[in-house]
Amino acid sequence: MVAQVVRTAAELRAASALLLAERGGRAQGLVPTMGALHEGHARLAKTAVEQNDVVVASIFVNPLQFGDAVDLDRYPRTLEADVALLEEQGVDLVFAPSVDEVYPGGEPLVRVTAGSLGEKWEGASRPGHFDGALTVVAKLLHYGIPGAGLPPAGAFVSGGGAGLPAYRAYFGQKDAQQLALVRRMVADLNFPVDIVAVPTVRSAEGLALSSRNRFLSDEELEAALVLSRALRLLEARANAHEPLDLDSAQALVASQPLVALDYFDVVDPGTLEPLAENCRKVPFRGEGLALIAAKVGPVRLIDNAPLSS
Amino acid sequence: MVAQVVRTAAELRAASALLLAERGGRAQGLVPTMGALHEGHARLAKTAVEQNDVVVASIFVNPLQFGDAVDLDRYPRTLEADVALLEEQGVDLVFAPSVDEVYPGGEPLVRVTAGSLGEKWEGASRPGHFDGALTVVAKLLHYGIPGAGLPPAGAFVSGGGAGLPAYRAYFGQKDAQQLALVRRMVADLNFPVDIVAVPTVRSAEGLALSSRNRFLSDEELEAALVLSRALRLLEARANAHEPLDLDSAQALVASQPLVALDYFDVVDPGTLEPLAENCRKVPFRGEGLALIAAKVGPVRLIDNAPLSS
Repeated sequence: MVAQVVRTAAELRAASALLLAERGGRAQGLVPTMGALHEGHARLAKTAVEQNDVVVASIFVNPLQFGDAVDLDRYPRTLEADVALLEEQGVDLVFAPSVDEVYPGGEPLVRVTAGSLGEKWEGASRPGHFDGALTVVAKLLHYGIPGAGLPPAGAFVSGGGAGLPAYRAYFGQKDAQQLALVRRMVADLNFPVDIVAVPTVRSAEGLALSSRNRFLSDEELEAALVLSRALRLLEARANAHEPLDLDSAQALVASQPLVALDYFDVVDPGTLEPLAENCRKVPFRGEGLALIAAKVGPVRLIDNAPLSS
Repeated sequence: MVAQVVRTAAELRAASALLLAERGGRAQGLVPTMGALHEGHARLAKTAVEQNDVVVASIFVNPLQFGDAVDLDRYPRTLEADVALLEEQGVDLVFAPSVDEVYPGGEPLVRVTAGSLGEKWEGASRPGHFDGALTVVAKLLHYGIPGAGLPPAGAFVSGGGAGLPAYRAYFGQKDAQQLALVRRMVADLNFPVDIVAVPTVRSAEGLALSSRNRFLSDEELEAALVLSRALRLLEARANAHEPLDLDSAQALVASQPLVALDYFDVVDPGTLEPLAENCRKVPFRGEGLALIAAKVGPVRLIDNAPLSS
């Protein structure tokens, strides 16, 4: 199937509403991306296609969430390959707007702010990043509201119990803090959308897929495996209702000289606050999220593991 | 007609969707208020009823936009009279949620921020006020999206060109900065709603209606008229394509000893930045907004006049 590429929010709304109507569809899915797509994104798209009648993927490298202009310029743009990957998963519409389309008149004055949740972990080394990310996600969630592209020319459906189509947006578990913040934004500001988390896709050896992995040498790729191994250690402990033994997991990472640890902790999945110290001493019960970030050679990598017991 | 009072967002969505479906309606209006309603609010409600098939008014005293707890406690709560006034205008649903309903789990972590637009004029004497106001307006705008209360049980309408019902929200021109900020939020974050500005309602002598006017003595009420008179001076100049002569208007206010001026300027209606000095010297062309704030006796009053020429 051929995916239609649209460049403006008006085209997106019109095209998605038309598809939904043609198919008598009940549900629309949105997959926001920054392009440079890999198998992790393919999994997002595939999940969305399985769960919805119409699926829109957006490709937009959002200047607002980049700290500096060089980083923004350097970000890979691979639209043709991205569209092909999305098409293969059955995505109907690819929304690839210009910066002017998303921010007419320059940077927005009114924004979403992540507050203290956006200042910790990844936010600590990227000031303003999550405010910029949430602001564009707010815009994309509004663009993607199903059915908004048809004029309200006919009467609203009476009878049959037909309300609005369902609306779901898909985010990868890989970016755990972004996912937590998007969930929090949707809850705190009551966006009319369900957020669906899609599990991280990994290489056969366990490395979480990332567009940055391409910058790692073979030796660094091997070294980077220590991140997922350390997370697996904690996961095994949690599954066995044992204390989390973060010290051993941290020692494992420290044993790899090519890996410079930034942070590694177990946090509450909602507040991202570290769990009480005693999760290292008493059998683990409940919900947690192990977060890890490290520099491997020239590249900063993040990974995480939701813990549940 | 009897207005239905609902207390939760879920009830609001269900009740409004049902009414819209029963009426085969095409448009829903939302009138957000903090209660203590007067004729100015009645005008908002009346306009909404004229333009929509289903109208929801919300009454919620939002703790997030109050600087201190005393002020919040002191804010008048007159639900019964408010419902009667709204009913009289033909409002269908009154949404009067508790603080816990709007902010379950306490204050929101993720918020909307007004940025520099929220720091000037009224914002200068009320730090954080507009961030709190925009955050609750964002929530209310999402609560009020028409049709969201029915499950997507049937298929989405095909044929007939029936998209989502139209959705409009009504704000008073009286709170000009709030109106400008809400417009800016809707534009910057792409909320799926049309903002409708409703002209300020005035006493026969010209005083802008406000719930605070009740705290003015007869002498102060008389003195307060200088605010609207000064605005009328500028309006007359603008309508006649003459220079704005802000100095004379300011002198008029200064001549009234019971009135302590806070600010009085002519600004760009979108950015709220003062217009270039030369609007006082060259014939006025274009759009402007005259903003005035002053203390009259114990009460701080604001008023404004959109200028167009």
